[in-house]
Amino acid sequence: MTEPEIRSATQRLHEQLETITELLRRQKLVEQVAHNQQGVHQDLVDSLVHRQNQTELQRHLDELHPADIAFVLESLPPEERLAIWQLVKADRDGEILLEVSDAVRESLIADMDQGEIMAAVEPLDADELADLVEDLPTEVLPELMASLDAQQRERVQSALSWEDDQVGALMDFEMVTIREDISLETVLRYLRRFDELPAQTDKLFVINQDNRLTGVLPLHWLLVNSPEKMVSAVMAPDVNTFHPGDDAYEVAQAFERYDLVTAPVVDDNGHLIGRITVDEMVDVIREEGDSEALSRGGLREEEDIFASVWASLRNRWSWLAINLITAFIASRVIGLFEGSIEKLVALAALMPIVAGIGGNSGNQTITMIVRALALNQISAESAKRLWRKELAVSLLNGLIWGGVIGIVAWWLYDSLSLGLVMTAAMTLNLLLAAFAGVGIPVLMTRLGRDPALGSSVLITALTDSGGFFIFLGLATLFLL
Amino acid sequence: MTEPEIRSATQRLHEQLETITELLRRQKLVEQVAHNQQGVHQDLVDSLVHRQNQTELQRHLDELHPADIAFVLESLPPEERLAIWQLVKADRDGEILLEVSDAVRESLIADMDQGEIMAAVEPLDADELADLVEDLPTEVLPELMASLDAQQRERVQSALSWEDDQVGALMDFEMVTIREDISLETVLRYLRRFDELPAQTDKLFVINQDNRLTGVLPLHWLLVNSPEKMVSAVMAPDVNTFHPGDDAYEVAQAFERYDLVTAPVVDDNGHLIGRITVDEMVDVIREEGDSEALSRGGLREEEDIFASVWASLRNRWSWLAINLITAFIASRVIGLFEGSIEKLVALAALMPIVAGIGGNSGNQTITMIVRALALNQISAESAKRLWRKELAVSLLNGLIWGGVIGIVAWWLYDSLSLGLVMTAAMTLNLLLAAFAGVGIPVLMTRLGRDPALGSSVLITALTDSGGFFIFLGLATLFLL
Repeated sequence: MTEPEIRSATQRLHEQLETITELLRRQKLVEQVAHNQQGVHQDLVDSLVHRQNQTELQRHLDELHPADIAFVLESLPPEERLAIWQLVKADRDGEILLEVSDAVRESLIADMDQGEIMAAVEPLDADELADLVEDLPTEVLPELMASLDAQQRERVQSALSWEDDQVGALMDFEMVTIREDISLETVLRYLRRFDELPAQTDKLFVINQDNRLTGVLPLHWLLVNSPEKMVSAVMAPDVNTFHPGDDAYEVAQAFERYDLVTAPVVDDNGHLIGRITVDEMVDVIREEGDSEALSRGGLREEEDIFASVWASLRNRWSWLAINLITAFIASRVIGLFEGSIEKLVALAALMPIVAGIGGNSGNQTITMIVRALALNQISAESAKRLWRKELAVSLLNGLIWGGVIGIVAWWLYDSLSLGLVMTAAMTLNLLLAAFAGVGIPVLMTRLGRDPALGSSVLITALTDSGGFFIFLGLATLFLL
Repeated sequence: MTEPEIRSATQRLHEQLETITELLRRQKLVEQVAHNQQGVHQDLVDSLVHRQNQTELQRHLDELHPADIAFVLESLPPEERLAIWQLVKADRDGEILLEVSDAVRESLIADMDQGEIMAAVEPLDADELADLVEDLPTEVLPELMASLDAQQRERVQSALSWEDDQVGALMDFEMVTIREDISLETVLRYLRRFDELPAQTDKLFVINQDNRLTGVLPLHWLLVNSPEKMVSAVMAPDVNTFHPGDDAYEVAQAFERYDLVTAPVVDDNGHLIGRITVDEMVDVIREEGDSEALSRGGLREEEDIFASVWASLRNRWSWLAINLITAFIASRVIGLFEGSIEKLVALAALMPIVAGIGGNSGNQTITMIVRALALNQISAESAKRLWRKELAVSLLNGLIWGGVIGIVAWWLYDSLSLGLVMTAAMTLNLLLAAFAGVGIPVLMTRLGRDPALGSSVLITALTDSGGFFIFLGLATLFLL
């Protein structure tokens, strides 16, 4: 047994990234030396070292899986990224473009001319093409569409007609179909005529003469059953079929629940039109997690960590602007009570505690609810129940922690009534946080919006303004 | 073609959940009526209706996939959940326990007696048993271990010896192994002796007489190649092997990159000891996304949305307590400047803007960095670069948005110097947010801690106290 096979696949990738970074760093050093020294002889040596380095880099890249090259490209800052991109063999460009994140893909395509783009997309299948089309410069599209045959063009157009988060946009067309009135022996002979089976194939689709799906034949069953048996005797009517209009995340959850590897996609009449594979579903699940985390704080999902300062500014401005407005409103709420603060300056020091704890508690609630909504675990009936539970949790938290901080305030400012107002304000603001923490995401879902989007900013805005109003209002009523 | 096959698999599950909820609701109504009415005759009718209802529920449950029952159980409040759990056939209990979330599993096991538990776990494999063992009451363990044969016991102990997030805890032992010196024909005949192949099998593992892995034979290749060929001529030396000590999330990323369905696990000597399947990896990817979202706000991942008020309180207290301390510190920072606020009450109204925008911007940065760290996209070298970028973004945001709010403050309070202090404070606090937004997660990772854990609470604490100190400090220096 040779060495590389004993090394684990995860270690390997890290070593490769390090080697490539090291080679790039050396390359840069050589370039700097060449730039600083003017001697002709020196230049020659440098360019030899340079070329040798380049060859070694090229060799490393050629050995890498397209997904690994995508990982390397995503992990490198823009200049190094483009340097590596130039070294990648043109016939692998398409596969790599499919693997990188949207933001990195944009930066790579921006670096290619029309000829390079056409060469890159030429080896791709219709469903892969459809994934890329939106990111390609519009000038290439006419030439690209003209280069496709009628069936491919139709498939690209069909894939484009669905939203990104629908099965129709994610399905591929690489299906092996058989009839039910043949023997397994015949199926085995038929399969031997293929050079290879479509990736991930774990079952064959059984169709009738109308192209309607009548069942599936898992490869496992093909292998363990006697070759004399008929397909119809062995196949299963597959209940795990999907429609092109189905929501991709829900289908991904079905893949997770039923441990599927592939599943057929049928139209409303039961005609087989494509298939969904688990690798696409894994991407959907990971992207859902990512975009949920990012959208909670109001970030678009596409920001590349090495994006330019300008691109980052644009990505974050809209939510910062919203936050500026909500902070300004909170500030004006305080402004209403400036008279009270002048009389009792302790209010200024205590008010951020009320607002802050409310925000934290509201964020805990909203995170839980967004999660449960994404998993479809909340119905109209259980929402009411959750409301009661969250309000009860908040009431107890408010009385206990609000009580603690009330005692501290009493001790610090030697005023029992100030302590009592503090406790009451904390309790009320926590109740507000619980009410909104369940209410905002449920309402967003009813309105057909993404409940995670900016949820953190919204709840914080509410508990800030609300907290200031409740605390300063109670103080004005009872203390002054 | 019959109706149910045309319905999409995702629609089906929702309909089933609705049907079951409806049956449960009806059941409850019948029980209420029986409770309110005392007539003997009435009771009899009710109990007939009740029994009929029960039978229908039972029938629905028997038709459901274990994962679907798990989903139904997770979507129901405690009483209904246990009512359904009682109706599930005992021989399916084990499979269902494997599918539900940790919190729900605890509630179900708490409802079972020792005999029920033993019956439930009896049909499970060693790796599945190992997943459950931690949640079982300690009284059952001796009886359970005694009921296993030597090999199974060893496997359970091996799985338990690894951390939950290591491959060793997730691998299973259901491998089909072959030798390389036989023909494909022989392999095909060998497979026909199986009743079924282990779930997800997409490749056979080729081992030598020492049980060392020498390669893999994908089922695809077995099917498309001529039966006369030898395994050694067709098999591939599989480079995607993993070690039991590998981090599960990194292995899941490898599954995603290379579109794997199964992969062999070997020990340091190259001996085949188990396999990893894509369904386990999908769970790992989803759970990573979940726990990242939850831990950011300081929630443990196990909270069941229908958990009792008491369980929810315990889950959230620790971080609320930390938040209370940080809020108290921020309050004391303001306390330092009470003299300044008394002289210029506008400071009280403006200070939350500085703190709030800083917190929002810091959260945006930290979310991005935590994501990139989870994907291993940040090296020591690129961290420095990211710092420069984030600081530049903050400087611009501070000057622009700080400028806007400075002008508003000038106009509101008719004081140019107050406006300038506001702009300067916002800029400095945004720089602090950027510095800490990159620094905190990078430092946490260096210390071997989870960078997402409580990251939101920490950054908000820093930008609150820092923002108040910077703004009130500058105001005291320049305005009073």
